[in-house]
Amino acid sequence: MRAELIAVGTELLLGNIANTDAQIISEKLSALGITVHHHTVVGDNPERLAEALETARKRADIIITTGGLGPTYDDLTKQTICKTFGRELELHEDILEEIKTWFETKLGRKMTDNNIQQAMLPVNCTVFDNPVGTAPGCAFEEGGVHVLMLPGPPYECRYMFENRARQYLEKLTDGVIVSHELRIFGKGESEVEAALHEPMTRLSNPTLAPYAKTNECLVRATAKAETREKAEEMLRPLMDEVKEILGDVVYGVDVNSIEEVVSGLLRERGLTLSAAESCTGGLIAKRMTDLAGASQVFRGGVVCYTNDVKAGVLGVDRALLEEYGAVSEPVARAMAEGCRKICGSDLAVSVTGVAGPDSDERGTPVGTVYIALAWEKETICRQLSCGKGRGRDRVRTAAAQNAFDMIRRRLLGLAM
Amino acid sequence: MRAELIAVGTELLLGNIANTDAQIISEKLSALGITVHHHTVVGDNPERLAEALETARKRADIIITTGGLGPTYDDLTKQTICKTFGRELELHEDILEEIKTWFETKLGRKMTDNNIQQAMLPVNCTVFDNPVGTAPGCAFEEGGVHVLMLPGPPYECRYMFENRARQYLEKLTDGVIVSHELRIFGKGESEVEAALHEPMTRLSNPTLAPYAKTNECLVRATAKAETREKAEEMLRPLMDEVKEILGDVVYGVDVNSIEEVVSGLLRERGLTLSAAESCTGGLIAKRMTDLAGASQVFRGGVVCYTNDVKAGVLGVDRALLEEYGAVSEPVARAMAEGCRKICGSDLAVSVTGVAGPDSDERGTPVGTVYIALAWEKETICRQLSCGKGRGRDRVRTAAAQNAFDMIRRRLLGLAM
Repeated sequence: MRAELIAVGTELLLGNIANTDAQIISEKLSALGITVHHHTVVGDNPERLAEALETARKRADIIITTGGLGPTYDDLTKQTICKTFGRELELHEDILEEIKTWFETKLGRKMTDNNIQQAMLPVNCTVFDNPVGTAPGCAFEEGGVHVLMLPGPPYECRYMFENRARQYLEKLTDGVIVSHELRIFGKGESEVEAALHEPMTRLSNPTLAPYAKTNECLVRATAKAETREKAEEMLRPLMDEVKEILGDVVYGVDVNSIEEVVSGLLRERGLTLSAAESCTGGLIAKRMTDLAGASQVFRGGVVCYTNDVKAGVLGVDRALLEEYGAVSEPVARAMAEGCRKICGSDLAVSVTGVAGPDSDERGTPVGTVYIALAWEKETICRQLSCGKGRGRDRVRTAAAQNAFDMIRRRLLGLAM
Repeated sequence: MRAELIAVGTELLLGNIANTDAQIISEKLSALGITVHHHTVVGDNPERLAEALETARKRADIIITTGGLGPTYDDLTKQTICKTFGRELELHEDILEEIKTWFETKLGRKMTDNNIQQAMLPVNCTVFDNPVGTAPGCAFEEGGVHVLMLPGPPYECRYMFENRARQYLEKLTDGVIVSHELRIFGKGESEVEAALHEPMTRLSNPTLAPYAKTNECLVRATAKAETREKAEEMLRPLMDEVKEILGDVVYGVDVNSIEEVVSGLLRERGLTLSAAESCTGGLIAKRMTDLAGASQVFRGGVVCYTNDVKAGVLGVDRALLEEYGAVSEPVARAMAEGCRKICGSDLAVSVTGVAGPDSDERGTPVGTVYIALAWEKETICRQLSCGKGRGRDRVRTAAAQNAFDMIRRRLLGLAM
């Protein structure tokens, strides 16, 4: 099946926001085995939306619109779609009640009359009620083309796709499509592709596809079967095969990030972490504390952007700083050990490096990073060359990613 | 003039990346007074790209493509555009030399032959040489339609628009369009819009337009005139008027972020900062050290995610922690004072709050945040309710933004 996405919103054409809805939905459609050939963005303009719909219905089996379902005069998606596909709008009393309740309980005020528009939906449609916002979505089929309408705010759009549109779309395909993502750090996309060449070319269902992400990559394994159980059964040996081929660079399956994996491993083992950060400047702490419940496993850390803080707070010997410089293995080791001590954590990670744009006063090249990890029995240290020639942000992100991988490897007893 | 953006890349249709190029360019076109009516995304597919070009040339004066200029077999933008608009491609020797040099100096290896394709450009085009990547862009006019080709990687796209395409587009409009952005923290978009209602409705050139951003908003003032100088002359009194109306919530003009402003103020005054972070978990340090040259003004900080770290590292009195709890004014004050002392900075900011998802053990509601600022003579503290009901990430971002604004106000001697 072929899908086309149409985003409606003048704010997109003014560049106030990026069309992240298209990314979210495209990724999920791809996992469902539905091909996307076009994304289109139009403003809050009924003529141009109608034109985009006419074009899309000629070339797609599924049209998914995002945005324009709200209560204001410029929210015209439903009206324009109904006009184009020859449908009427009707009031859904139950949806109206839900919107009224949302206003009273979540927003603490009475619903204003303009919100009634949000309960007007096409005749004979499948209603997608919206428990995370006020605008419901819906779907109908006309002349072999399925039209799905989802709200624009990315959080709502993601929720509504995952919990409403997905079920609708799964019914359109004969059978169920299930996919899992293997997250990989330490091998690039092309290396992964080369390693998986044999199963990738051998297989048609299930399938394997690698994707590049910032500082890492992922492999998506997708199977189509009559039931979810059968699809899972097809995927199990394939996932095992991929893990076997790629080895311990696979850091997780269906997880959001490497810090989530690290956090889970720490929790399972009842261990805590702290971080002493020079060039990453708080990025590791920030990523650890992005996760809800971080306080159970992360005790804190020190951002030591000067030698005084390295010496005064972390207790790094000034002689080491003078002899080897701040970006050096002895200093990285002393930072991790000092941090472990003052934060009272089981493990402590430290990062010191040159993020750029300039080299340090000793001429250490941009991208040079030392990462140390201290625990009760030992402190280890790795020197890396991160993100050469790719700018400050890339060096810092790559350093943090490497630090998380080092912690993961330590917790699992894997080779560094 | 009316522009249409066409992004080329299967990775966009697979949802691997969002079309941020369209956002970047749309925002800049809007500032140039050029209207955007459509964004289209197609894959690396010459038929669908040709179709999109045919559609666009009928309704737009300017077509800007992003992506598909690289050296691989699926980079087909130039070929497809030339076919559609009846042009030939020719080899540009000077560009080829630049690409060879880029490979040797930046990537440290010899250019492979497939890269010659990148030096093939349409006959009689304006070449946009690319000093930040290998693929040059270009532009030509055919039948009253201007076609501009820019590289896809967002960093390159932004650079090439700002330093190449902008000059090309400015020549198309009679006169020059100049715009400035006033960045605002502490008033929402609707409040700003209401305050500026009179000048907004009175004016047609220059114009004023407010935009909402995460945790802040901005007002863009745009003027069109024969010369840049005249446009600047028109904007000066308007900018003064806006600043007069909005007051000190305007934190900067044409700046990237509030931390950039804080960093500049610290540098001017020869002062240094440190940060003690509980609920923001390193976000303030991370944002300060995102800026190149941060080490001149930022000494470091402590991420104190546990009471032990607050007491042991920052020296917060345990009696305060027990009596008032970690999320309290006395603890925020002690954190800032302790951080200032151990980091040896002129100012120290501290943040303690409940980021969620749950309240703390004393039942302090999610979003409650205390921010303290300590300097030689005094320590001040503010209590805020940040991002109620908007999730962990929003609470943390709002808290950091408020902390930066507090530092800014202190450095400028403004009311808190």
